[in-house]
Amino acid sequence: MMKILITGFSGFVASHFVEFLYGLEEDVEVYGLSRSTPVFNYSKFEDKLKIMFFQIDLMEYDKLKTIFSEIKPDYVLHLAAFSSVAYSWKHPSESFTNNSNIFLNLINAIRETDTKCRILSVGSSEEYGNVNHADLPIRENQEIKPLSPYAVARVSQELMSQVFVDAFGMQIIMTRSFNHIGPRQDERFVIPSFVKRILDIKYSGQTSGEIETGDLSIIRDFVDVRDVVTAYYLLLTKGTPGEIYNICSGRGIRLDEVVKTIAEEVGVSVTTRTNPEYIRPNDNKEIVGSPYKIETELGWRRTRKFRETIHDMIIDQESCR
Amino acid sequence: MMKILITGFSGFVASHFVEFLYGLEEDVEVYGLSRSTPVFNYSKFEDKLKIMFFQIDLMEYDKLKTIFSEIKPDYVLHLAAFSSVAYSWKHPSESFTNNSNIFLNLINAIRETDTKCRILSVGSSEEYGNVNHADLPIRENQEIKPLSPYAVARVSQELMSQVFVDAFGMQIIMTRSFNHIGPRQDERFVIPSFVKRILDIKYSGQTSGEIETGDLSIIRDFVDVRDVVTAYYLLLTKGTPGEIYNICSGRGIRLDEVVKTIAEEVGVSVTTRTNPEYIRPNDNKEIVGSPYKIETELGWRRTRKFRETIHDMIIDQESCR
Repeated sequence: MMKILITGFSGFVASHFVEFLYGLEEDVEVYGLSRSTPVFNYSKFEDKLKIMFFQIDLMEYDKLKTIFSEIKPDYVLHLAAFSSVAYSWKHPSESFTNNSNIFLNLINAIRETDTKCRILSVGSSEEYGNVNHADLPIRENQEIKPLSPYAVARVSQELMSQVFVDAFGMQIIMTRSFNHIGPRQDERFVIPSFVKRILDIKYSGQTSGEIETGDLSIIRDFVDVRDVVTAYYLLLTKGTPGEIYNICSGRGIRLDEVVKTIAEEVGVSVTTRTNPEYIRPNDNKEIVGSPYKIETELGWRRTRKFRETIHDMIIDQESCR
Repeated sequence: MMKILITGFSGFVASHFVEFLYGLEEDVEVYGLSRSTPVFNYSKFEDKLKIMFFQIDLMEYDKLKTIFSEIKPDYVLHLAAFSSVAYSWKHPSESFTNNSNIFLNLINAIRETDTKCRILSVGSSEEYGNVNHADLPIRENQEIKPLSPYAVARVSQELMSQVFVDAFGMQIIMTRSFNHIGPRQDERFVIPSFVKRILDIKYSGQTSGEIETGDLSIIRDFVDVRDVVTAYYLLLTKGTPGEIYNICSGRGIRLDEVVKTIAEEVGVSVTTRTNPEYIRPNDNKEIVGSPYKIETELGWRRTRKFRETIHDMIIDQESCR
């Protein structure tokens, strides 16, 4: 019996991770922690998985220690995060607390309860900052230059992981996860919001329309959340503690290409207009990662192409209309 | 009239900074912020300086904003910190909050109140971590490798400074301050605690005695707090925003040499015994900085030799017995 504790259990990535666990041969006990009640219906997995949910703010340190003392999980997947760059510009302090401080509480609770477990600390491609085109795709040894409060919070989390690995021999594996997208993603994020607004055009009976956007010339590396959770499982079970792994597709896509793909899949024609309010201070122009390390060390491969993911996101949003 | 706001006003460094301001020709208004009432008697400076004290925890964001709205200082010297490495191992979360989070609150309050001021963000030589002997003395472009929760918190503060400088044009100057020592330093810190215990030997009427210590083979770069505050003033008024400056002596001293110097100055003979409890996880072996940048750019020079500082610390502690 494998015991996995998942923080940020109410979120998008957790829902896909549980679905992945459901597909495994192994017996798994899942302990989900979150401030808010899960939006996904996990009861449908309970014929096979044993799932227990704990409503907790990870800043409640004593409560967290009690949970670890009682459960003693084998694996901890730390997904809880305020993962929006935009939000971090508006609420830097809150963003910092809900990334760096909650993580520090988590690993300290694990240490103080002497819980022997492997921990996955999820970081972000945002940690790299602006990288010269010549240095793309980005490898893990690239110098990091965080450009937003969110990115700084993720770097802090990573540095703290390294300190706890070195000082206490804790088994923390780290990721730098690139933009993940997929069904059930919150519409406040950029790609799902494009999908939503392009579907709005279709469902209003139009064949063409306009959407407002930020800077569409920026390039990101998108990876399907279902491939991401496979990577997380591989890293949790087989990754090397103290090591950092990119999780990415290796391919950069301009945001205007994203809009075009969605429009094609939805079957409407879309024009765009830039709204300066959507432009973030000091944004990274181009982020494309190299998945070489996780591919060669752990045999991970992404299985879903970008257009397929977009297609599934459209189907998912349409099914909820 | 120059308005200077000082956080961490109740502390050791603030007391020396106020003393330094007292010696200036200029008219200065000092606004001191601290959680606790200042232990130093600042009324003796009030014949020349206008000093106002505000009791505040920097986590009280709204109160902080009100203070900035009302005062609109020209300079902010941010000294508030939990600056003990040892403490950060025991209370990592609290240490992190009282370094990184309070700093983020501070700069965000300054930004949101549109206060045009120059800010000094004090960092630490601990950010460098273990540096190869060949790379000593450490220059500011040395790669940083924080090895303790405290060091990570200081790196986070520095990264956040850089983000706010780049994104909002804030005028934040950063230091990496090496171990500062001097009169009035809290006896929980290592050098004052050596002084105290060696004075205990003398005042118990003995000519020799034993003290328990941690690892005495480690090497640190000690700089007199009175030279440090001169550097802080120079940086606040003339440093380049977005730049980092070492504040150090350029000379490494082994802790056993420190014990020897104190013993000689006190006039007793001291043997030492290692207590493993005093040995920190993962400590840096040797930290020696290069003051080249602040010396050449701003003309700073340290004025007090190590033995002179030790002498003054002994006199100070003796006067309080």
